[in-house]
Amino acid sequence: MPKGYSGKILRVDLTTGNISVEEPDDLFYRRYLGGWGFVAYFLLKELEPGIDPLGPENKLIFAPGVFTGAEISGSGRSAIGAKSPVTGGFGEADVGGYFGAELARAGWDALIVEGKAEKPAYISIVDGRVEIRDASNVWGKDTIETQDILREELGDSLTRFATIGKAGESQIAFACIMNDDNHAAGRTGMGAVMGSKRLAAVAARASERKEVHDSGKLREIGQWLMGEGKPHYQGLQDYGTNGDLIGIHEDGGLPTRNFQLGHFEDAEKITGQTMSKTIFKRSGTCFQCVVRCKREVEVTDGPFKADPAYGGPEYETAGALGSNCGVGNLAAIARGNQICNAAGLDTISAGMMVSFAMECFENGIITEKDTGGLKLNFGNAEAMVKLLEMIVDREGIGDLLAQGYSACIEKWGPEAESYALHVKWQPLPMHEPRYKFGLGLGYAVSPTGADHTHNVHDTTFTTEVGLGSVYPFGVLEPLPADDLSLAKVRLVFYHTLSRVLKNMMGLCLFLPFGPNMMVDLIRAVTGWDTSLFELMKAAERGMAMARAFNAREGLAATDDTLPDRFFEPFASGPLKGVSQDRQQFRAALDAYYQMAGWDPVTGAPTRGKYAELDVSWVADELDKYGKVGV
Amino acid sequence: MPKGYSGKILRVDLTTGNISVEEPDDLFYRRYLGGWGFVAYFLLKELEPGIDPLGPENKLIFAPGVFTGAEISGSGRSAIGAKSPVTGGFGEADVGGYFGAELARAGWDALIVEGKAEKPAYISIVDGRVEIRDASNVWGKDTIETQDILREELGDSLTRFATIGKAGESQIAFACIMNDDNHAAGRTGMGAVMGSKRLAAVAARASERKEVHDSGKLREIGQWLMGEGKPHYQGLQDYGTNGDLIGIHEDGGLPTRNFQLGHFEDAEKITGQTMSKTIFKRSGTCFQCVVRCKREVEVTDGPFKADPAYGGPEYETAGALGSNCGVGNLAAIARGNQICNAAGLDTISAGMMVSFAMECFENGIITEKDTGGLKLNFGNAEAMVKLLEMIVDREGIGDLLAQGYSACIEKWGPEAESYALHVKWQPLPMHEPRYKFGLGLGYAVSPTGADHTHNVHDTTFTTEVGLGSVYPFGVLEPLPADDLSLAKVRLVFYHTLSRVLKNMMGLCLFLPFGPNMMVDLIRAVTGWDTSLFELMKAAERGMAMARAFNAREGLAATDDTLPDRFFEPFASGPLKGVSQDRQQFRAALDAYYQMAGWDPVTGAPTRGKYAELDVSWVADELDKYGKVGV
Repeated sequence: MPKGYSGKILRVDLTTGNISVEEPDDLFYRRYLGGWGFVAYFLLKELEPGIDPLGPENKLIFAPGVFTGAEISGSGRSAIGAKSPVTGGFGEADVGGYFGAELARAGWDALIVEGKAEKPAYISIVDGRVEIRDASNVWGKDTIETQDILREELGDSLTRFATIGKAGESQIAFACIMNDDNHAAGRTGMGAVMGSKRLAAVAARASERKEVHDSGKLREIGQWLMGEGKPHYQGLQDYGTNGDLIGIHEDGGLPTRNFQLGHFEDAEKITGQTMSKTIFKRSGTCFQCVVRCKREVEVTDGPFKADPAYGGPEYETAGALGSNCGVGNLAAIARGNQICNAAGLDTISAGMMVSFAMECFENGIITEKDTGGLKLNFGNAEAMVKLLEMIVDREGIGDLLAQGYSACIEKWGPEAESYALHVKWQPLPMHEPRYKFGLGLGYAVSPTGADHTHNVHDTTFTTEVGLGSVYPFGVLEPLPADDLSLAKVRLVFYHTLSRVLKNMMGLCLFLPFGPNMMVDLIRAVTGWDTSLFELMKAAERGMAMARAFNAREGLAATDDTLPDRFFEPFASGPLKGVSQDRQQFRAALDAYYQMAGWDPVTGAPTRGKYAELDVSWVADELDKYGKVGV
Repeated sequence: MPKGYSGKILRVDLTTGNISVEEPDDLFYRRYLGGWGFVAYFLLKELEPGIDPLGPENKLIFAPGVFTGAEISGSGRSAIGAKSPVTGGFGEADVGGYFGAELARAGWDALIVEGKAEKPAYISIVDGRVEIRDASNVWGKDTIETQDILREELGDSLTRFATIGKAGESQIAFACIMNDDNHAAGRTGMGAVMGSKRLAAVAARASERKEVHDSGKLREIGQWLMGEGKPHYQGLQDYGTNGDLIGIHEDGGLPTRNFQLGHFEDAEKITGQTMSKTIFKRSGTCFQCVVRCKREVEVTDGPFKADPAYGGPEYETAGALGSNCGVGNLAAIARGNQICNAAGLDTISAGMMVSFAMECFENGIITEKDTGGLKLNFGNAEAMVKLLEMIVDREGIGDLLAQGYSACIEKWGPEAESYALHVKWQPLPMHEPRYKFGLGLGYAVSPTGADHTHNVHDTTFTTEVGLGSVYPFGVLEPLPADDLSLAKVRLVFYHTLSRVLKNMMGLCLFLPFGPNMMVDLIRAVTGWDTSLFELMKAAERGMAMARAFNAREGLAATDDTLPDRFFEPFASGPLKGVSQDRQQFRAALDAYYQMAGWDPVTGAPTRGKYAELDVSWVADELDKYGKVGV
């Protein structure tokens, strides 16, 4: 077994109470690496097509990457996956914090949770000792209360947790899983799957370090990071992810008022820089990480209180609850962030449901009769906060919004549809396809729907050189953000794979490790004689398997779309008149498919492409359903 | 401009006498690297489709690789390309020796020869000083006489040469270009193109070393090569390439009697080991190379004389003139080798024309009437040698054979066709598709037709680990030689690209540098922040451009075939009963196309694949001829 892995996969069946251990062979590790790769593998191998994502047949997979838990910054990431109740396809969210690293160090390369507990339960993992325990006393508690209670019950203050709150318990489709205090595995509804299994939490405690092949090399890279590498993350350290908001606004690409605009008159009020001068309490971080990009904020006065235990708004949250709802009130955003984190609700999706309701309200599609008297105008901070509470409590219109866009459209009529901004029913994160053209394409082809974690961010990726260099991919010329030429398509294709690779590694996106350094890291952890070629192909394998899963579930090429809004020009602002072009977008999609070797109907790889990726077994599986070309 | 290049391309127009210099930008170098990559670039950019390969519109391109001429073993290779008179498509042959390294060190990243001289000419290059000079005095001389005369004329004993002999002068389709004394750029008829331009020779003399980015790293790898690396080439050093013949015979895969059999009763008599005990005179080598795999042989007694100046039989020659003609006479093979090298005739193609004629003769398709009294039976050493002389002199049946398979079939009737063993009219080299299944597929898809230099040799490639490791390609499991599963197709696909990469680098196949060491070498020469990913994509780009050139010339997917013989089982020997399977071969071809992103009709890449390879200009060019998918 290669270094960096324990060689053990833990399987817990909540229906039967059975706990078992599997030991895959070496090839399994080298082919699928971890994270997304393991998730895709187990979902394809073990799920029957067509199962209810919220039924006991779904499986919830906690999958660290090969790098997760190693003694170096950026190793705090891990993946959580299942069939998604949001998209009906491949569900996966990656997350920072400490839990994933603790799980890996406890000796588990993955945890597969099956079935459904009879009453609320949690899984306790202390190194090799695994128990299913009663969680009745924490069911209904918020995510931090839950872990505080369980930590005390387990009697070990260093235990780390993955938890759900009320949102997951009541199976809100866009419920997330919180790791530790305030790290969210946000997208694709993994919290709902966890809730459907009546699994309140997973607790992990490790007594050992992660064994690696060459710890000296990791130390060397760690030293580099604190010295030469530092300028590349100084901004994140100073202002968190939300330090970027003001520049995006100035460029005209800040999602505002449900993506109607790209600039926000109150942008200054909600930036990371403003936050640092006002409600900022302290920085937070993830396992071993010197970047410290997390914010913890405190608001003790006024109508919107916030407790630093629940963290603070990331850029995504400031956008989703702030500019995109027209809300320029940082305290209200911090309060909304707390409501979501406490209940285990994805702030992006939640904010997008609020802004959706607001645009419907402003256009008369819904009225105060529907909202229970709430004046759902853009900019109404109180209404935004109130609506989040109503969603969590499934109260009034909140209960409808908790069911997602499709339930609302069904109830409010087809007019509402144009305000529902999603890809594969996953609400858009806070990146504008009319600002970052490549990202729009990336949203469309992503197997998890609109997603910002394994997708190109045109403005940074194309202009970086050196550390974030794209030269090792053979991308030799900068490309502007508002470009969707076939050269940009190539960049999106490669970049998405490099993001999936980071996911499979368990490496944070925010670390300034260039492509060749990623190879060095994998070599240092595993000892493999590997290369960027092999690793990019591993990522392509992971992507192919996710697309195959979607095809088996009935998703097809026709699901690779972008909402109409992004083909309509901005009416004002720095990007006035700018939009994606339908014909260019179509050509870009076609080219992407040809680059990826995807069938133009099923949207999944051809038989030859599966073979090239060394997973002909996936072709054989898909063949049963007529979903693979010859 | 990156290190390792001079930044200058030399263009010589033999029609006008014009000599000019071009300075491509940095991106040109990084995209196309050199060798095959440059050849493909210039042929696509500069040739009109449909031109006569032997007309003045063809261009002959001498293209060192980025590595060629660097101060380390294995850097003696370079490429020579043009539209091929053999295949009618992409013509390219790579060659060792000293000339290519001298050309590169003289300050030329490539030499493009255009037009046609009014009377025999040669090009003299002394660093930056370039002249077109009269070669009337060497026209009609053999390749070594030519260089001896010109060396004296130029007055510099260290001048290196590329020359043709009578074969090139009379435009025999399978004429080669000799580099220095006895290194042949053998395949695809480059000597005929050179002859058609009335270009007798190119002379090069450099006074400088090649500048590289990190000469210390090259020295380090050079040291490794002489120590730890040595066991990996010891066999080649001891016995040359022909040291392998006996093992191939024992396995049952030695081309014998025009590929009728895979074992040869007189194999022992023609091995490298026997050679070393008999006619071996001394080892030869290429620029800077410690491997010393070349043989120089001497025969002074008996009917078949051989002079060591003309080198000695490689494995290919021992097979083509020996076992494949049923000839177990080493002196006769050495004599045949000398006839071919002196005249500049590809020994593989020449031997294959002889064995073809022999099989036709034995089957009564031709008789002594056709052969001018020669008894062309397999095993007739005298006849083999005599026929080579008749081909060179274009005498009798030799004149017909000099015109290749198609002329013979036209004259002798369709019965002869089944004995013409070629892909895209290029005669097969000495590797048996029923012995190495992947190689059979590689022959079929190669843009230069049946070719052994950029093609998988199943038996070595799949079992090597460490130095020759395929792990960095993600090929993790050994595959037997007699396998054409889709896993083998993947191996062929990757391996062919790695061979094309070596060609573009100018790195000899025989050096035991693994994939990651190749990356180190390119980094050391150029200073680029590159990766195996970028380099494999560069190779794929080169392959795509060659396929595009072929498509523009009217070649298509239907030309990717293998002769019928290889789908019929061996009648005897260790591989009795073994053959390629048509259905499996068809499936392998389909999968290869999907892996490569090639259109199933034109056999050339789709628009998206060109874009992925950063050569959308090729798609635009091909579009003019309706040869690219949307």
